[in-house]
Amino acid sequence: MMHSESRKVDTVELVKDYLKNPIFRDATLIQSEILKCIRKVLDEKGFVELLPVTVSPITDPLNHPHFETEFEYYGQKYSITKSMILHKQVAVLVHKKIYIVSPNVRLETEDKMESGRHLFDFVQIDMEMLNASREDVFEVMEDAIIYTIEKIKEKYPDIIKKYHPDLKTPKKPFKRYTVKELKEKYGDNYEKLASLNATEPFWMIDIPLLEREFYDKQDPNRPDVLLDFDLIYPEGFEEAISGGEREHEYEQILKRMKLKNTPFEQFEEYLKVAKEGLLEHSAGCGIGIERFTRWLLALDHVEKTRLFAKTPGKHSI
Amino acid sequence: MMHSESRKVDTVELVKDYLKNPIFRDATLIQSEILKCIRKVLDEKGFVELLPVTVSPITDPLNHPHFETEFEYYGQKYSITKSMILHKQVAVLVHKKIYIVSPNVRLETEDKMESGRHLFDFVQIDMEMLNASREDVFEVMEDAIIYTIEKIKEKYPDIIKKYHPDLKTPKKPFKRYTVKELKEKYGDNYEKLASLNATEPFWMIDIPLLEREFYDKQDPNRPDVLLDFDLIYPEGFEEAISGGEREHEYEQILKRMKLKNTPFEQFEEYLKVAKEGLLEHSAGCGIGIERFTRWLLALDHVEKTRLFAKTPGKHSI
Repeated sequence: MMHSESRKVDTVELVKDYLKNPIFRDATLIQSEILKCIRKVLDEKGFVELLPVTVSPITDPLNHPHFETEFEYYGQKYSITKSMILHKQVAVLVHKKIYIVSPNVRLETEDKMESGRHLFDFVQIDMEMLNASREDVFEVMEDAIIYTIEKIKEKYPDIIKKYHPDLKTPKKPFKRYTVKELKEKYGDNYEKLASLNATEPFWMIDIPLLEREFYDKQDPNRPDVLLDFDLIYPEGFEEAISGGEREHEYEQILKRMKLKNTPFEQFEEYLKVAKEGLLEHSAGCGIGIERFTRWLLALDHVEKTRLFAKTPGKHSI
Repeated sequence: MMHSESRKVDTVELVKDYLKNPIFRDATLIQSEILKCIRKVLDEKGFVELLPVTVSPITDPLNHPHFETEFEYYGQKYSITKSMILHKQVAVLVHKKIYIVSPNVRLETEDKMESGRHLFDFVQIDMEMLNASREDVFEVMEDAIIYTIEKIKEKYPDIIKKYHPDLKTPKKPFKRYTVKELKEKYGDNYEKLASLNATEPFWMIDIPLLEREFYDKQDPNRPDVLLDFDLIYPEGFEEAISGGEREHEYEQILKRMKLKNTPFEQFEEYLKVAKEGLLEHSAGCGIGIERFTRWLLALDHVEKTRLFAKTPGKHSI
């Protein structure tokens, strides 16, 4: 347990820093362009933007330790959204391709304070496609990332030159590596080491069955792996995107929940919808906006990419 | 207190309704266009889009009864954002014109269930301008509303014809009425009645001092009214926008907080920033996205404008 002094943030000094340190002005400009570019690519591909769900009885159970944000309202328990995954599976039944600029609150443990990669209140653009494979998602997101980098280098050359002069625009298709081959090459710390060794973003695929949550689809032909993926940034910046094809069949969802010891109660309403056979096959992902900004500007900590950043374990406004 | 049965929502029936009732498909299409159009107008006028603050120790105290969403994290108390008002006052010091697609959670009391206008998890586009007057805000928002309506009528004529065939594109400048003159004309229920009588949106200005929160600027020349405003939709659809010029001077903020019995503790960090003299004069507003959608489609309840709507007092997913 850390000493409580290390959590404190002097709000007046922070606001003064916003005013005198150009990093906040530069990063927020780049970030606004990231939002514009990703949305433009998705809009042009026929995606419909939906509004976020900020609180719900149903949210992502997550695969790592964290605190809960539960509150009660007229007899129902709500949490703040940790990811819109289960709502996206319903939303694609209304529009085949959807995205949401989705705020996520994940009360991470304080050991994440210095990771450089974690905020406990962050935004991802969450997208989902009906009857799509993970390759379809790769296609869309590669276009979005390439377009965004090209546009930002063109519109803000001075900012990129100042922070990340050797930023390369990646080429399609991005490389794919299975977790198995990365583990063989790099050992247990494979994600970090593979990221440090890479010069372009790459897809990390075939994540082992028990390393992700119940909603990512089990490969029917290779049941020890999932049809999911992360996109990993190069130069040690690690995870950019997380996504996958989804489980949509009731029995299979139940089986996967049991395997992960996921409590059924919280997902009761979701399970009813699945049992009724209403869900269909889909695939999608979420791209973290602060992390994308961090990589484009090669910043040491994601807390420098935005105003009012919420760093795990630290106080904030 | 209502019987608990009336709160229940059958999730399976709701999802089936999403699939068979075209209203959800139509409304979400219109809504995605609203987001695109407002952002486009703001982008073209030089506004910078910032990411939302979803949880904070500091948020809008609101001027009406509601429940709180407080939780504790490493010794600090947080609430879900009810509006980004106080963060916007800091953000305009970094970029002179800003906006945020901002999710707000306000746990309204159950008497709002049938108002047709309330959701307890909704989105507003929150904008703020440094050194601006409320007339500057009117100018920007009138352009945004007119452009959005023109674009939607052009792009989705069949949807508008089906739901709101007599939808008029309003003309600049929108009319302004003081609360005083509306009260004289319509009595206590002036907002509803003036809305029912109007055929175009109008600005309701000069709200009496005690009817709004401490952050809306008191008129130095007429201290019984504020330099704030609402935009009111015609045809009985009521409040569209709420905003104003802001208090930014420490002594004046303290005076206003005392007048409203606002507890100082929650705003300690904000008051420190004000005391240091860092805040400057600004003006801004927030436009509710679900309510704008409701008016454009003339729907009886805002819960039909989006997926996973959260109606006060009702259960939801």
